[in-house]
Amino acid sequence: MKVKVILPITSDIFNEEVLQEFSFYASAGTEMSMTNLSTGPASIESEYDEALCLADFLKKAIEAEKEGYDAIISDCFADPGVKAAREVLDIPVIGPGESAMLYASSLASSFSVVTVLPNVISMIRNVSKLAGLDSKLASVRYVSIPVLEVQDKERLVDALYSEMIKAIEEDQAHALVLGCTGFLGVASELQERLNASGYDVPVIDPAFASLQMAESLVTMKVKQSRLTYMTPPSKVRI
Amino acid sequence: MKVKVILPITSDIFNEEVLQEFSFYASAGTEMSMTNLSTGPASIESEYDEALCLADFLKKAIEAEKEGYDAIISDCFADPGVKAAREVLDIPVIGPGESAMLYASSLASSFSVVTVLPNVISMIRNVSKLAGLDSKLASVRYVSIPVLEVQDKERLVDALYSEMIKAIEEDQAHALVLGCTGFLGVASELQERLNASGYDVPVIDPAFASLQMAESLVTMKVKQSRLTYMTPPSKVRI
Amino acid sequence: MKVKVILPITSDIFNEEVLQEFSFYASAGTEMSMTNLSTGPASIESEYDEALCLADFLKKAIEAEKEGYDAIISDCFADPGVKAAREVLDIPVIGPGESAMLYASSLASSFSVVTVLPNVISMIRNVSKLAGLDSKLASVRYVSIPVLEVQDKERLVDALYSEMIKAIEEDQAHALVLGCTGFLGVASELQERLNASGYDVPVIDPAFASLQMAESLVTMKVKQSRLTYMTPPSKVRI
Amino acid sequence: MKVKVILPITSDIFNEEVLQEFSFYASAGTEMSMTNLSTGPASIESEYDEALCLADFLKKAIEAEKEGYDAIISDCFADPGVKAAREVLDIPVIGPGESAMLYASSLASSFSVVTVLPNVISMIRNVSKLAGLDSKLASVRYVSIPVLEVQDKERLVDALYSEMIKAIEEDQAHALVLGCTGFLGVASELQERLNASGYDVPVIDPAFASLQMAESLVTMKVKQSRLTYMTPPSKVRI
Amino acid sequence: MKVKVILPITSDIFNEEVLQEFSFYASAGTEMSMTNLSTGPASIESEYDEALCLADFLKKAIEAEKEGYDAIISDCFADPGVKAAREVLDIPVIGPGESAMLYASSLASSFSVVTVLPNVISMIRNVSKLAGLDSKLASVRYVSIPVLEVQDKERLVDALYSEMIKAIEEDQAHALVLGCTGFLGVASELQERLNASGYDVPVIDPAFASLQMAESLVTMKVKQSRLTYMTPPSKVRI
Amino acid sequence: MKVKVILPITSDIFNEEVLQEFSFYASAGTEMSMTNLSTGPASIESEYDEALCLADFLKKAIEAEKEGYDAIISDCFADPGVKAAREVLDIPVIGPGESAMLYASSLASSFSVVTVLPNVISMIRNVSKLAGLDSKLASVRYVSIPVLEVQDKERLVDALYSEMIKAIEEDQAHALVLGCTGFLGVASELQERLNASGYDVPVIDPAFASLQMAESLVTMKVKQSRLTYMTPPSKVRI
Repeated sequence: MKVKVILPITSDIFNEEVLQEFSFYASAGTEMSMTNLSTGPASIESEYDEALCLADFLKKAIEAEKEGYDAIISDCFADPGVKAAREVLDIPVIGPGESAMLYASSLASSFSVVTVLPNVISMIRNVSKLAGLDSKLASVRYVSIPVLEVQDKERLVDALYSEMIKAIEEDQAHALVLGCTGFLGVASELQERLNASGYDVPVIDPAFASLQMAESLVTMKVKQSRLTYMTPPSKVRI
Repeated sequence: MKVKVILPITSDIFNEEVLQEFSFYASAGTEMSMTNLSTGPASIESEYDEALCLADFLKKAIEAEKEGYDAIISDCFADPGVKAAREVLDIPVIGPGESAMLYASSLASSFSVVTVLPNVISMIRNVSKLAGLDSKLASVRYVSIPVLEVQDKERLVDALYSEMIKAIEEDQAHALVLGCTGFLGVASELQERLNASGYDVPVIDPAFASLQMAESLVTMKVKQSRLTYMTPPSKVRI
Repeated sequence: MKVKVILPITSDIFNEEVLQEFSFYASAGTEMSMTNLSTGPASIESEYDEALCLADFLKKAIEAEKEGYDAIISDCFADPGVKAAREVLDIPVIGPGESAMLYASSLASSFSVVTVLPNVISMIRNVSKLAGLDSKLASVRYVSIPVLEVQDKERLVDALYSEMIKAIEEDQAHALVLGCTGFLGVASELQERLNASGYDVPVIDPAFASLQMAESLVTMKVKQSRLTYMTPPSKVRI
Repeated sequence: MKVKVILPITSDIFNEEVLQEFSFYASAGTEMSMTNLSTGPASIESEYDEALCLADFLKKAIEAEKEGYDAIISDCFADPGVKAAREVLDIPVIGPGESAMLYASSLASSFSVVTVLPNVISMIRNVSKLAGLDSKLASVRYVSIPVLEVQDKERLVDALYSEMIKAIEEDQAHALVLGCTGFLGVASELQERLNASGYDVPVIDPAFASLQMAESLVTMKVKQSRLTYMTPPSKVRI
Repeated sequence: MKVKVILPITSDIFNEEVLQEFSFYASAGTEMSMTNLSTGPASIESEYDEALCLADFLKKAIEAEKEGYDAIISDCFADPGVKAAREVLDIPVIGPGESAMLYASSLASSFSVVTVLPNVISMIRNVSKLAGLDSKLASVRYVSIPVLEVQDKERLVDALYSEMIKAIEEDQAHALVLGCTGFLGVASELQERLNASGYDVPVIDPAFASLQMAESLVTMKVKQSRLTYMTPPSKVRI
Repeated sequence: MKVKVILPITSDIFNEEVLQEFSFYASAGTEMSMTNLSTGPASIESEYDEALCLADFLKKAIEAEKEGYDAIISDCFADPGVKAAREVLDIPVIGPGESAMLYASSLASSFSVVTVLPNVISMIRNVSKLAGLDSKLASVRYVSIPVLEVQDKERLVDALYSEMIKAIEEDQAHALVLGCTGFLGVASELQERLNASGYDVPVIDPAFASLQMAESLVTMKVKQSRLTYMTPPSKVRI
């Protein structure tokens, strides 16, 4: 199968690593491709950024379906454009935030999300509410590192580890979800550090989760329900 | 006070009536102004349409604040762009869907929304979930009339009345909410027809509700919380 | 329009200030009137007090409708008698507690109430449950000042400010609601002090909120649903 | 132990039967006593009636504690005055509505209440919400017989049976609760008729349930929590 | 009536005390009998233990009904086998966990459970969720004492008292539930110590609660609904 | 990877088809193995059956981990023994019911389950409650065909199709979940028939869903949280 990852930002600093990581995660028969946006915000750290990425994201999602892709991933934890794209596409459209929360909720009675900045807490809570999983969300914590600075992995891992320990000890989180798809390649190290501290808990990488969800849905030959995501009526759109 | 209504669609067929209605509803000291969009969908009947209206809506909302308006109304029942605009503006930003549901929930133990097409049911349910009011939402019904055809008032009122009776008798709705801001000038007639049928229930017009909410918030000198709607970090947005 | 404020207590120490405040808040075309009770508790700080105020409150509410008032406000945060009065009156009956929570919930993803004494915490939680807004109520805090001592404004504002800061920092409140209608004339000062501390959050005054709600409902020509608040059957009541 | 039943209405037509039934239900060591009110409504069929019964109910409840009773039952399905009396008394105060719903919820995954008139549906839903049991409440149905006419047992049982069948078949109720404490002596006949129709489901009599709850709490030597039901502060109450 | 207590563990160290306590609690006309298991775990401190006790518990429950008992109590706070036994028996089957939570929820707006080990927290939360009472569960705390060591009463009471104070002061619990049926004979001492500390709150003993529930259901002549707990189809079971 | 399917029943009539189906579904690198039970019920159609399968299921699950399997599937829609096995194993343990509901909830705003008999409705509702997904469960319907008769595929598909149409049209289901792991090889035909009737909705096969979940968790190198599923203390278990 062919899966298209659309990174819904105009910064291209993640491009190489994103393609590398997804390719590494992918099953033998899965061919990965990725693109970032031509217009929109450099990164997504607010509802405002999310709003500004949608037009180009949707354009690229529609193109990807025409090019024969079997599934689309909107590669941001806030799942931008996923609902809209599900209406206009006949292939599965996957959000990393929802996917990660679903896997986490199957592994533990509660989970916390650790994200970049306080600005996106309400957005992440809203994703959990619309997914019907807010009763399992113990807390949303943040590392105070902007999206475009998460590539300093050492600083990032230390900050994430510290918030994860607080999520477990203060918020009763039983599983952890990385709350930004830019937190690449750190999940297993964090899981090991938590294990070493006596906490044998799963750490979910949302990018990895979104790819697993994409592969599973394509394999099961199912996609979004047309009763929830109806085809938009034709009209002028300028 | 000065209130700006932004009709987040590119069709201009409602412009005159919208300004007329809002001006008629407005308090003595309130000055109304309205605009529709330069780019975006002709009407909003899907998540896809909502996504496409956001960029220009936000541009016009930012302009309106600069021009000295005291509050902004995003004049569509799906409340497009309200959360994003609340982040970037320092004046209240009002959504008719949420406003109408809040007034309805204060008048009855349950309410139904009657809207245009089945396509928007999930969007309206999501508005109620994020407003925390889904436990009061008895049902979402629709009249099967597209937004751009709602100006045939006779057909519209008959269809709305018929669905409202079903909402009361089959879904246990105790109040009714008009689920499209294009349903202008029909609330009082519907309330009278329902009264005549023995149902003394309130019918909430979302445009009117949004204006009342705007005036109340400005009068009380409060606006959206900066802890829920934080100012977006500066960055390149192209 | 004419709005009647019924202060459901027998102490008259608030009378003058209440009328002054409501008159100051009221729109140009709104005529305010107020009365306190002839029989009942000196103040309301328990379910017991609330029970004892109802008979005279309802009598005065019925009189007010006969005298031509367009709306009634039961001027206590616990909204005493509001449901019963809605059954027997054909004009809107407003509760400050519910009104304040509705406005707060439209401005933030969560809010805290700061009230007088721990005795009324359960009552306030119950108001939020019946309004369907308990999922947004972060906490109920109190200043340990009885109702009849809230007129020492300096002490009151200091105590409220201190609890509001805790509500924000410990309970994740994003908006604040004053939990007693005797907390008159302090909302804007508190909002300024919170702003000065770096918290740009709305502070809702329940008396002001109830008046805005009353004016809005009268303006929209809607009142409580007769399906939720049916007219009581005739019978002997002695 | 000594249990006092206070029938919170001024009509005395139920007095004899109420005392008889409670005495029949009571355990060997339980001594029953009952009284109705001197002032208040003839029956309770609205929030308004409930409000008007409270002052005399509370007076009689306080007297009963002074006379040495071990528990009080407020003998109406809407549980009038129970919260207020719990604040001022140091003996358990029991509501038949809440008690019946608690037993029903332990016997089935859902239950319906069948009551007198549509007027009290919202009151009963509110009792279930404050008891935290609304997720188990399948429906509230009614027989359209006023409280003071329920003594025609044949008509009553037929009407209740008919609504119970609908509650099972249309609303997925798995247990039934009689929604008026005036529905005396009919539970077992209804349970038998339902059994004969193939529905082996429990029918809960709220008066009987309230007595069981009273005896259980007194036997376990527990009463209402003083943290939920704090003692009202002293003050003038006229 | 005759009530059978089945202690669903193979250790017999509690047998004597359990029979003694239940006999002490029982009403005049109630005859108590108890048995522990022949096969299964020594104690129940995990889902795994619960799974292993079920076969013999169900066998002994079926025998008890044949021997003429009127009700069965599964004497462990996790209510093992209660749902299964309700399907195959025509007499009430009672779980101490659910019973204790129901009584606690009628006495306070929130309650905490204090149990043996962290291992059973999720099990207890699940009991509250299926009982529909999770919105009232403030917290589950534990004393870090295994089931088979709870007979050192002094150590036990000190540890329970300490966690109960934390439940009240940190978790806003208004009532306390003992979270293990092995915590015998300590409820009243704990209630007194809490009273002496200024907390007049009920402490519910789950064994006592289960007996009250059993006696009440038998007295009211009701049992589990056959619509929730249908009779299992006949089949080979080896 | 090696995945072990444990069919928790003693009937072996499904063995061949189960292995065939799972092998057909499995990814290239996944090796499937299956076993049914030596002791327990012939099929699972009640809480009672579920209780009786647990001891042997857990024994076989422990053996499978020792034999080097990477994940276990408890092949019944009620997810028997999953929680207990998660405590004692260090590899993922998967339940088809929870897995199917998670995938369904990601594809639609609501879903219905269609199962074998009314006996298991409450069990399935409980699975959804503990998974936190009950707000998305539109209904549980059944075909009135016992587990051991589902191999008449034509009759089965007709009955399932008929209930699925009702779930969509009467219960507002937007996705469908097959509510028995014995419903093998019928999902795609049902999805096609629904499509042909104008309903483009996903049909989730729980066996297929459980395998996808198993493969995803093993690939992501995560398993159940040890904070939710703690290792049971050592003790005598006979």
